[in-house]
Amino acid sequence: MILPTDPIENLSALIRCPSVTPTEGGALTALANMLEPLGFSIERTVFSESGTPDIHNLYARRSGNGPHLMFAGHTDVVPPGDESAWKHPPFSASIDNGEIYGRGAVDMKGGIACFVAAVARHIAEHGVPASDDKELKGGTETSPLKGSLSFLITGDEEGPGINGTVKLLDWAARRGEHWDAALVGEPTNPNRIGDMIKIGRRGSVSGTLTVRGVQGHAAYPHLAENPIRGLVTLIEALLDPALDTGTEDFQPSNLEVTTIDVGNAATNVIPAKATASFNIRFNDSWTEETIMAEIHNRLDRAAASNKLRSDRETPVIYDLVWSERPSPVFLTRDEKLIGTLSASIEAVTGRKPELSTSGGTSDARFIKNYCPVVEFGLVGRTMHMVDERAALSDLEMLTRIYQRFLKDFFA
Amino acid sequence: MILPTDPIENLSALIRCPSVTPTEGGALTALANMLEPLGFSIERTVFSESGTPDIHNLYARRSGNGPHLMFAGHTDVVPPGDESAWKHPPFSASIDNGEIYGRGAVDMKGGIACFVAAVARHIAEHGVPASDDKELKGGTETSPLKGSLSFLITGDEEGPGINGTVKLLDWAARRGEHWDAALVGEPTNPNRIGDMIKIGRRGSVSGTLTVRGVQGHAAYPHLAENPIRGLVTLIEALLDPALDTGTEDFQPSNLEVTTIDVGNAATNVIPAKATASFNIRFNDSWTEETIMAEIHNRLDRAAASNKLRSDRETPVIYDLVWSERPSPVFLTRDEKLIGTLSASIEAVTGRKPELSTSGGTSDARFIKNYCPVVEFGLVGRTMHMVDERAALSDLEMLTRIYQRFLKDFFA
Repeated sequence: MILPTDPIENLSALIRCPSVTPTEGGALTALANMLEPLGFSIERTVFSESGTPDIHNLYARRSGNGPHLMFAGHTDVVPPGDESAWKHPPFSASIDNGEIYGRGAVDMKGGIACFVAAVARHIAEHGVPASDDKELKGGTETSPLKGSLSFLITGDEEGPGINGTVKLLDWAARRGEHWDAALVGEPTNPNRIGDMIKIGRRGSVSGTLTVRGVQGHAAYPHLAENPIRGLVTLIEALLDPALDTGTEDFQPSNLEVTTIDVGNAATNVIPAKATASFNIRFNDSWTEETIMAEIHNRLDRAAASNKLRSDRETPVIYDLVWSERPSPVFLTRDEKLIGTLSASIEAVTGRKPELSTSGGTSDARFIKNYCPVVEFGLVGRTMHMVDERAALSDLEMLTRIYQRFLKDFFA
Repeated sequence: MILPTDPIENLSALIRCPSVTPTEGGALTALANMLEPLGFSIERTVFSESGTPDIHNLYARRSGNGPHLMFAGHTDVVPPGDESAWKHPPFSASIDNGEIYGRGAVDMKGGIACFVAAVARHIAEHGVPASDDKELKGGTETSPLKGSLSFLITGDEEGPGINGTVKLLDWAARRGEHWDAALVGEPTNPNRIGDMIKIGRRGSVSGTLTVRGVQGHAAYPHLAENPIRGLVTLIEALLDPALDTGTEDFQPSNLEVTTIDVGNAATNVIPAKATASFNIRFNDSWTEETIMAEIHNRLDRAAASNKLRSDRETPVIYDLVWSERPSPVFLTRDEKLIGTLSASIEAVTGRKPELSTSGGTSDARFIKNYCPVVEFGLVGRTMHMVDERAALSDLEMLTRIYQRFLKDFFA
């Protein structure tokens, strides 16, 4: 039996599945085909919810005595964009000058491919895996593998995330699954393998602000009320002063106004309505509730000042809709998990990784409700871009790190 | 022969022509149909210029001995906006509770309708008009009308104004036309007929401001540069402090930001570009050159401060395009014209009109290069708004004022 010990082969098989969210695209089947020979029991689930697309998910477990480690990730990818702009077709897995090209190469089919290869090598080191199907629960006495391993893989990480990790965790937990630690294979390294482990993430919340005025002629501003004056006043209050200066574990919270739209083509008309959207990434000096309250306070104060109107007695009338389920901030402090992973990275790369809380949200924010979780994967530089690609040497190095981590975690 | 002595019928016919700039919409034909039975010689011209839509215009003259009075105006109208928001369809000329509804009811098909009715009554008072076609030059001995009357009507007052009044004046002047005075029928009254004659206008200039940044992920703002931060900083500098506090003859200059557009739908993406447009109405403390220089100064100072970015060392990079030929400020001081019109208004309404320079630009800024010009028309309160409408009693009152003015002007 040929085991999936080569991360490049594993990744090629995954990239060739065009699994743009919410399409499964064959990617979970390809993964299942790799895990079955390794003795994993595989369950496929499809979660649905009115108004959202059905999502395919996969949970695979190989049981043994000792702690239970979850590897979590996603096989869905963001759209390739303009395919003609790619050096190689985005689902071709072309290898060129020591790099493998394809949408998801680093985010994060690459992480999955390496972890599968690491598990295959780990099992091979300990003897041939049991080839008969196992029940999800209870290990086999003859397996030489210590501890339990599971893959929790969703097809909805790049989408709304409603029918993915959240429901899969709940589904598995209801069936009695417990985990002692989790590793998410997202690309965490800014420049080189070994740069950075993510041990936490800022929270995220988005809102849309609408100011309504009174339409009119630009030459008769006293008969109209320009909502842009109010909106600019409110936006300035959102941006200044800064939300905070950062904490011991986190960089400063940040707010970006992502769009402002009025859509008035007539230069002599004062528009009736102006809208802006913003996104906040907040650190552990806030909760979802306190950051949202701060925004409301800033807006109310600025609205009362109405400082860009000659009639400052009238407050700005605004409407704020929080447009996304807020993501909580989280921070993991599990010495065994973080220490073992750090040491494995140092052993393979010779460099001590930074323990970071920077960057965007990930599904780790859901997993942290079940067990300690950290994230470590490939170099993220080309994620979501045209010509997303991973160095073949990086794939081998990450596989070795994962393999060392498995050995030491279960030792 | 039925003469167009009823301003309501005249206005209904004009409103039913959907003459949104640059569309003629049948409005000039409707007007020609009213003027022909009154003995006017009618010429229709279409002016073209590369990059602008063709515009239909009308010049009509009825000649006699004595001074030559021009009535000037436009049959084009601004778009109706959200038609479902109107109480009555914007081109239906529906009459409801003593008011006639429709786009252009006051700006300024109403003014045209009343002047046509006034001329019809004036001619009827002096006898039946000649029914055979007249040449543009030279009156008919049998006409009892003293002096010459002309209508200079464009279809491009609400648009860029390139193929409208400017070219029509030039065209007529080249054919030997001279005018002693002009009356523009724009809505000049804030609240009641008789409130206000416009004897001058502020200047107007418009610009479009573009700030370019660097697109990126909202979670990695240090890798991007949000152009909205710079744009909001620039806009605040345009709006605050006020440009001036007004002069003896003019109200304060004013700047309105008419639109801001980014068009970024992704809440986790920092956009690459943000654009805003603004319009300035300036009084006689400025010229086109000095007001534009002031704007450049304000923008440069604000760009250097870049106060909404953490990196304030980098100035905001902006691009300003002045999007319209600036309109100069002007002031008319002709005792006969202003005095006769004032007295006519007082005779009909019992109130002495204010001699004002407030409000928007009008084509009077072009006419003033040929002869003294003032403006007097309907109540402007609903112009450019949803449910633009005119009181039927106002239409009758304005017709009587115009009729009295014609009688006294030519007396």
